[in-house]
Amino acid sequence: MADLKSKFLEVYSVLKSELLNDPAFEFSEEATNWINKMLDYNVRGGKLNRGLSVIDSYRLLKGEEELSEEEFFLASALGWCIEWLQAYFLVLDDIMDNSVTRRGHPCWFRVPKVGLIATNDGVVLRNHTARILKKHFKGKPYYVDLLDLFNEVEFQTASGQVIDLISTLEGEKDLSKFTMSLHRRIVKYKTAYYSFYLPVACALLIAGENLDSHIDVKNILVDMGIYFQVQDDYLDCFGDPETIGKIGTDIEDFKCSWLVVKAMELSNEEQKKVLYENYGKPDPENVAKVKALYKKLDLQGVFAEYEKKSYEKLVFSIEAHPSKAIQAVLRSFLAKIYKRQK
Amino acid sequence: MADLKSKFLEVYSVLKSELLNDPAFEFSEEATNWINKMLDYNVRGGKLNRGLSVIDSYRLLKGEEELSEEEFFLASALGWCIEWLQAYFLVLDDIMDNSVTRRGHPCWFRVPKVGLIATNDGVVLRNHTARILKKHFKGKPYYVDLLDLFNEVEFQTASGQVIDLISTLEGEKDLSKFTMSLHRRIVKYKTAYYSFYLPVACALLIAGENLDSHIDVKNILVDMGIYFQVQDDYLDCFGDPETIGKIGTDIEDFKCSWLVVKAMELSNEEQKKVLYENYGKPDPENVAKVKALYKKLDLQGVFAEYEKKSYEKLVFSIEAHPSKAIQAVLRSFLAKIYKRQK
Repeated sequence: MADLKSKFLEVYSVLKSELLNDPAFEFSEEATNWINKMLDYNVRGGKLNRGLSVIDSYRLLKGEEELSEEEFFLASALGWCIEWLQAYFLVLDDIMDNSVTRRGHPCWFRVPKVGLIATNDGVVLRNHTARILKKHFKGKPYYVDLLDLFNEVEFQTASGQVIDLISTLEGEKDLSKFTMSLHRRIVKYKTAYYSFYLPVACALLIAGENLDSHIDVKNILVDMGIYFQVQDDYLDCFGDPETIGKIGTDIEDFKCSWLVVKAMELSNEEQKKVLYENYGKPDPENVAKVKALYKKLDLQGVFAEYEKKSYEKLVFSIEAHPSKAIQAVLRSFLAKIYKRQK
Repeated sequence: MADLKSKFLEVYSVLKSELLNDPAFEFSEEATNWINKMLDYNVRGGKLNRGLSVIDSYRLLKGEEELSEEEFFLASALGWCIEWLQAYFLVLDDIMDNSVTRRGHPCWFRVPKVGLIATNDGVVLRNHTARILKKHFKGKPYYVDLLDLFNEVEFQTASGQVIDLISTLEGEKDLSKFTMSLHRRIVKYKTAYYSFYLPVACALLIAGENLDSHIDVKNILVDMGIYFQVQDDYLDCFGDPETIGKIGTDIEDFKCSWLVVKAMELSNEEQKKVLYENYGKPDPENVAKVKALYKKLDLQGVFAEYEKKSYEKLVFSIEAHPSKAIQAVLRSFLAKIYKRQK
């Protein structure tokens, strides 16, 4: 695994160097230095799970122990496209959420001299995925499918972000608008498609598959992505900031988190009042009251039960899939996230 | 012309309605209302020159008076893709530049409740171009060329924006870095490709042409785009704010404008000192001193001379082109911008 990651990082260096010498633009020394630093800061430093899972999935689909050098490079390049796409979303999300830290460091827009230039850096990151795709996949029979796939998933992510952002506006007026159905819709579009479906869809395409024949795989991965985001909401409040690399601010930010939706479901009128009065306020005292209520409602226990049920349901769906290779891909994903602490 | 514009706006309504019913996303009523308002505010309200010029160019390339209904729709859809792309750039630019007005209205991010959600709205606008292309061009022989074209031009625009933004950074502010060569590079990438090359390239593609055989057309359009941006820089200072729809702030914002580059070229040591001491400061007194120097150096006369020379050069290049149809396209572009006041 350590070896896989270092081989994956070698591909990053190749891609970065190609992007910094892209003939479609005349780079100045300052521009090269800026982009170089921006990429290292935002693309390279994550857990790389999404990117690595393209390689893993492709290997499992082919049913081979080892990929050829070329196969490894292509799967890695697609893996990096997803990491680039994620970096683009995160750089812009942090600006919109006014976040403080990301992956244990200050958010990019908080780095001295960067500020709102980070907005354009986000756009540059987005464009780099298209440049990587063109450089390495133009001419392949699935090139246009790759472009359509990345475009569709990016659209879904941005659309999920729309309902997330405006529900915060609406929720500030009325907490009762935060329902499980809204929560599900937000996380399905904002997270599940790009984090779970996209890596496997990339692997399917390079393996020569037609995505239209794999709607069932998409549905399972989207469900897995929803479960993953519920974990994220849980860790935002109950996780260890050192381990997750950021300080959660969902309560302060009036986020439509699984926890607050569950709390609204389980609260009596008096407890609801506590939520109405304290949710979405920056003062630590308000936050503490919300957290105390979460504990009183035993959201930790409720989450453990949700986690168990989700796991069982996913295993059931996976076992129903006719292809052993695809079962292996899906199982590998599930194993990586089940009971994760970060 | 009024008729053309109203037919073009009908296509906008069709495209908008398709986007608000895109099956790739489950819209909530709030999301539909938000996007609807956001589109009307940011996409529809410009001069629409770039979009309309796709129709105009396509008509001239075909050498026909009238396009069929289908041809008109396709050319319009591409024209709107460019308008959508431009809206995406402008929404984000205004955030980064902390601008006040755009097209005579408050910038989108200044509209109550919008704020930095505008960042994601920019991303949504970007994604809409890909959705429009997929809906109406998937299956056409030039579909993949369209995707590559829009991706490449977007990359060039974002890259031009990088050098523009880092040239105005706090602490790096050094007027002597503002040379004609830097100015040319910024405006070539940031403006010329998407404003001039892109509309004609779209028209060439639907007319069945291969873009690789039209590098000469690209070069002429890029030169025209540079001339257009020099006009923009000129109007930012000497234009009528009522007519251009915004209050210029290039001087306050330490922009690498054609005017300041020219002023640096023409100034003696004492005049340069005036620029060093007053350029890039928000105080109206500093701005007035810069403007007074511009007048003293007769930048109005210098610009008039530049405009004349550019025009002659462009006419010469256009006349050297072997195709009469392409000459007509290029001439039509030039006629629209020569001596423009807005």
